[in-house]
Amino acid sequence: MSGETRQRPPNGGRTKPAMRDALVAAALELFVERGFEQTTIDDIVALAGVGRRSFFRYFPSKEAVVFPDHERCLADMSTFLAAGAPDDDPVHRVCDAARLVARMYADNPAFSVRRYGLTRQVPGLRTHELSVVRRYERVLADFLRARFAVRPDRTLRADVVAASVVAAHNHALRAWLRSGGSGDVLVDVDQALEYVHQAWCDLCAAPGAGGGADGDPADDVVVVFARRGVPMWRLVQGVEAALGET
Amino acid sequence: MSGETRQRPPNGGRTKPAMRDALVAAALELFVERGFEQTTIDDIVALAGVGRRSFFRYFPSKEAVVFPDHERCLADMSTFLAAGAPDDDPVHRVCDAARLVARMYADNPAFSVRRYGLTRQVPGLRTHELSVVRRYERVLADFLRARFAVRPDRTLRADVVAASVVAAHNHALRAWLRSGGSGDVLVDVDQALEYVHQAWCDLCAAPGAGGGADGDPADDVVVVFARRGVPMWRLVQGVEAALGET
Repeated sequence: MSGETRQRPPNGGRTKPAMRDALVAAALELFVERGFEQTTIDDIVALAGVGRRSFFRYFPSKEAVVFPDHERCLADMSTFLAAGAPDDDPVHRVCDAARLVARMYADNPAFSVRRYGLTRQVPGLRTHELSVVRRYERVLADFLRARFAVRPDRTLRADVVAASVVAAHNHALRAWLRSGGSGDVLVDVDQALEYVHQAWCDLCAAPGAGGGADGDPADDVVVVFARRGVPMWRLVQGVEAALGET
Repeated sequence: MSGETRQRPPNGGRTKPAMRDALVAAALELFVERGFEQTTIDDIVALAGVGRRSFFRYFPSKEAVVFPDHERCLADMSTFLAAGAPDDDPVHRVCDAARLVARMYADNPAFSVRRYGLTRQVPGLRTHELSVVRRYERVLADFLRARFAVRPDRTLRADVVAASVVAAHNHALRAWLRSGGSGDVLVDVDQALEYVHQAWCDLCAAPGAGGGADGDPADDVVVVFARRGVPMWRLVQGVEAALGET
């Protein structure tokens, strides 16, 4: 297809969201067809039928147009975390926050799967994606650091729990993307997040911690945390409570 | 200082490692002094006194010269993991593998601290570093996936443990870099790695898991893992053993 036939006249009558959507659709189409490096911003605006300045009104770079919803999702995540009650289980809260990302992918499966294929092929998009993932991880870690304030290990624990949550989320998300979007990604992400929730939650009774999210219930593991120096009877009480035997 | 005074004549008599070291030193000096974007590869080779082609013999890009030892360290890590015995504790093994990275930083503290300052300021170096960190994480996850082969949760667990190990390692490493390289980074990294080792190891007795790597010893936490259905007297025995009271 020649460059001429791919050009639309600038359309001043379209709404802003429609212009933005048109830029995203045009960019992905051209990147898949011609290659990311071979496509210029001029090519994208010509196909979308908008002016060059409109592109930069919505996106700071050619990489950013491939991930159009992460900025909104990062903002939603911060808002969601800030809205929690102070006595919420913080690990549960960050797992729920991570689900916002999965939902964004699930809202547009065809686009998500197509973009995944493109991202595997273009190193510049891979590194852009890594920097976005790192931003999510920092939002989660910052929240946990504040909520773990009374723990002596708060900053280390916050970083490790945030990394665990992001790794579990991305594990399930990537498997779904690799499968071409078959099955319910939200169910898979829930299972993966529950796995890390159980491993790191210290408000939970914690059956399954350190064990298998998909293991046999008969293999359930009980975990008891206690300060050194706590009398033995308190520990036994804790164990009994965890086992549901009291 | 003018461009002329920063130029050395090409030195054919230097050994290859010396040429490589000269390129790294010249690059870091110029990046700190003039800025990363404002420095060209021609500037670097002129100051190092080597030909332009020599640069590309050692480094694929201007970013790569800032992280000259990661390729060797990645190779060392793979070799180290492959050399383990099949009945090693796999989580312990990946923690030991991560220590290779800390040692690389500790071998040259002044360079590491200077580079850290530069990396904070240059987004392109930040994303390059993220892509290197991701490669370490994948080497660890691949090893764990193979070693967890009989577990039903093997791929998820491998990804989450690898992410936890990398997060703990980088937590301690970054704190040391931020401090300007004061204290013993290897001790700090050991403590952070022991924290995740205890949390994820299922071969260990696990005292201290989930507890404070940087806490007061009096605040030590005792963790007992036990299968549901284990009789109470066995649990009490386990608690006593963990407390060292038997």
